Amino acid sequence: MSILQERCPHEAIVKASPALAHGQTESSVWYPASLVKQRRLPGGTVKQNGFYAQSGGVTAVINATACGVLEAARKRKDKIGKVFAGRNGIIGALTEDLIDTSKESARTIAALRHTPGGAFGSARYKLKGFDENRAEYERLIEVFRAHNIGYFFYNGGGDSMDTAHKVSQIGKKLGFPVTCVGIPKTVDNDLPVTDNCPGFGSVAKYVAVSTREAALDVASMARTSTKVFILEVMGRHAGWIAAAGGLAGQDRSEAPHIILFPEIAFDEARFLLRVKECVDKYEYCVIVVSEGARHADGRFLAEAGTRDAFGHAQLGGVASTVATLVRDRLGLKYHYAIADYLQRSARHIASKVDVEQSYAVGKKAVEFALKGQNAVMPTIVRTSNTPYRWTIGQVPLSHVANKEKMMPRKFITRDGFSITKSCRRYLEPLIRGEDYPPYHKGLPRYAKLRNVAAPPRLGGNFVLR
Amino acid sequence: MSILQERCPHEAIVKASPALAHGQTESSVWYPASLVKQRRLPGGTVKQNGFYAQSGGVTAVINATACGVLEAARKRKDKIGKVFAGRNGIIGALTEDLIDTSKESARTIAALRHTPGGAFGSARYKLKGFDENRAEYERLIEVFRAHNIGYFFYNGGGDSMDTAHKVSQIGKKLGFPVTCVGIPKTVDNDLPVTDNCPGFGSVAKYVAVSTREAALDVASMARTSTKVFILEVMGRHAGWIAAAGGLAGQDRSEAPHIILFPEIAFDEARFLLRVKECVDKYEYCVIVVSEGARHADGRFLAEAGTRDAFGHAQLGGVASTVATLVRDRLGLKYHYAIADYLQRSARHIASKVDVEQSYAVGKKAVEFALKGQNAVMPTIVRTSNTPYRWTIGQVPLSHVANKEKMMPRKFITRDGFSITKSCRRYLEPLIRGEDYPPYHKGLPRYAKLRNVAAPPRLGGNFVLR
Repeated sequence: MSILQERCPHEAIVKASPALAHGQTESSVWYPASLVKQRRLPGGTVKQNGFYAQSGGVTAVINATACGVLEAARKRKDKIGKVFAGRNGIIGALTEDLIDTSKESARTIAALRHTPGGAFGSARYKLKGFDENRAEYERLIEVFRAHNIGYFFYNGGGDSMDTAHKVSQIGKKLGFPVTCVGIPKTVDNDLPVTDNCPGFGSVAKYVAVSTREAALDVASMARTSTKVFILEVMGRHAGWIAAAGGLAGQDRSEAPHIILFPEIAFDEARFLLRVKECVDKYEYCVIVVSEGARHADGRFLAEAGTRDAFGHAQLGGVASTVATLVRDRLGLKYHYAIADYLQRSARHIASKVDVEQSYAVGKKAVEFALKGQNAVMPTIVRTSNTPYRWTIGQVPLSHVANKEKMMPRKFITRDGFSITKSCRRYLEPLIRGEDYPPYHKGLPRYAKLRNVAAPPRLGGNFVLR
Repeated sequence: MSILQERCPHEAIVKASPALAHGQTESSVWYPASLVKQRRLPGGTVKQNGFYAQSGGVTAVINATACGVLEAARKRKDKIGKVFAGRNGIIGALTEDLIDTSKESARTIAALRHTPGGAFGSARYKLKGFDENRAEYERLIEVFRAHNIGYFFYNGGGDSMDTAHKVSQIGKKLGFPVTCVGIPKTVDNDLPVTDNCPGFGSVAKYVAVSTREAALDVASMARTSTKVFILEVMGRHAGWIAAAGGLAGQDRSEAPHIILFPEIAFDEARFLLRVKECVDKYEYCVIVVSEGARHADGRFLAEAGTRDAFGHAQLGGVASTVATLVRDRLGLKYHYAIADYLQRSARHIASKVDVEQSYAVGKKAVEFALKGQNAVMPTIVRTSNTPYRWTIGQVPLSHVANKEKMMPRKFITRDGFSITKSCRRYLEPLIRGEDYPPYHKGLPRYAKLRNVAAPPRLGGNFVLR
């Protein structure tokens, strides 16, 4: 896949991985396993504990990754002690608010696999550079040391990979080396190197299914009612999620008739012309718009510049802006939906492939760590398109931290309104398969954790920025 | 159920139905079957054809009703000829644009059961009173006569029941009596007499599931991100759909913490106080708001009075209004989703009970008609709550036409923000069970009909209003 062509100095690791099976890519020992084992506590204990934290926006399957981490760790009790989880992500580590996951039953942990949201709480909290906020890193290592945490699993996007990388460096400096493994998670699908990101496939499936369903609704009403339907989806910088809407139809006659990507500058005249063409030809027009769609000058379409009765800038997303255009310039009846959090929490329609990959990266992260592989991230490697096959590879965190993978231009049709065949080939396997949660009385039965706090050993209040 | 207590002069029929099993409620012969059989065409044919039309907003399961009608008719080829469907509902009859459903395979017809939207097209087109627009009724009867249509199945809400009722009267007057059976359909759940309306259960399930899922997302991010999440759902007059969101949680601590019903005048101060209480106590607040939520003076909350750069009234629903309030008065970070058509087309998460009932009313409508029962509508009758049991009853169209069933006040808690136990008892069975469509390459495989036009016999252009 073209999106795998990102160059990195450690080509041997990254490039070799597609051809390797599970377990064969772990030769890059960044932090020798022997060293880990030699770190003995005063009581003579050899085993160290683990720490798992969720970071950034949660997804329908981030808990499947948690499930993979915890189940893998439980199977290796010979090598790893407890796994603590950060209550509200990294904040839990900074404030010494650790959840003792050993208090949860095997059944509850297994149920995480089908539970959306972040079971331990996540956080939008980015650690600054070491020089800017040394106290936070020192505190982190202090807490890790106090709880004998030798393994740090950080489950998030680009920023989190950067943090995990920094922690791996700083632990050594501070005399308490920690094996750090970043675990990819982002609905935005914008992490480099990995073929795709856990979390994306399920949002993609939700958006594709919803677009197909809503299109059937609109098509059947178009004669006398709504002619234009707009679905607003996530993706502030990259159009991957909007692109997934394109899977709903097979050709230009099928919805969605127009996709508005952040990558393509919005051209009002061409857009309106295409809407009109669709309505003339098919009687209706379905539009999937990325929240990040923008004008040529970089302004978001969502910045409509409207004010409410109090003079405050009017809330309202890009869907409302596009709908206003359609109404005012074409006089067509519209409806719009804003999927917002529904799209990234819709575990009920998660992609089976995504669930499996999310679980696999969690499991693999533990295996990497227990082999002493430090400052790495498991990646998803596509080994074959037809039939779709994948395996787990590995990349140094330094190569993924703070990098964004945009949609290649060749994934978008020349007119800028649709996805190409190559894009379809890339996306389609990622939404495959259903993985339904169990239901009780008509509602999904999601895991409810006890989230028992581990007794603090340091005490004191660490004040967050 | 309290909502079944609507009085009607033909009590014997309506009241008796809860206790009767399938097929036992059909003793009210409004239009003698003998008369139907005696109407012979010049060629000596006895059988008459049927006409089926979808009306108003479509649902995830209106095609399951179509499936019930068509499969039942195909089984009674001894008594009924072809079933034509109106392309775009009743407009297809007026313009003599009839779809010959006999051209579809049994497999395609069966697939309608799991296909959302309106397979033949629906229409927002209400026939006026006979005196106001006699030409339309005459045309309808003229088309029916030309195509030997003796059975009219009209699948819609209150307005459509009124139309079906009028057609039953007018056919007689014009010397071409037609057996008219209305078939209930509305996501709004506002038809009287019937315990619930086909279409509602699936929207209810979608809203309940989505609320539960989004709540898990918000709960896990609340510490550092969104504190208030708002989900806007349908229901302009009655709060049934918003109420269904209440099924997502079990007590006051669980989301949704606030439901805004059209039935309860919006009290800004009390609302903001409750939001603040929730955020203080649970760290987050989930709100389900009905699009019909309104102020004490009757104005919709959605009428925000905002203008865009061109001075046009700003589009934007009630969710945006509520979010603006939360931001400006409480300074809390919010997100909102607008489910719009997604909620009523989400066949992927349809309620199994709803699918079964939707099919059953279609099937029963044919049975009623073939017994010569005219100007009636099949109803869903709840015969037991625990375990939930239902059967199909019957009501004269005159008793359901143009009537709305509102939420009883006792279904809403005293504070006006939640549903009561009795509401939960009523709603919960309606969302039970899953009825997943088949999938292909990650997407639901929905029926694609050929929709072959029946050759017109009248010709000429009938001009719609």
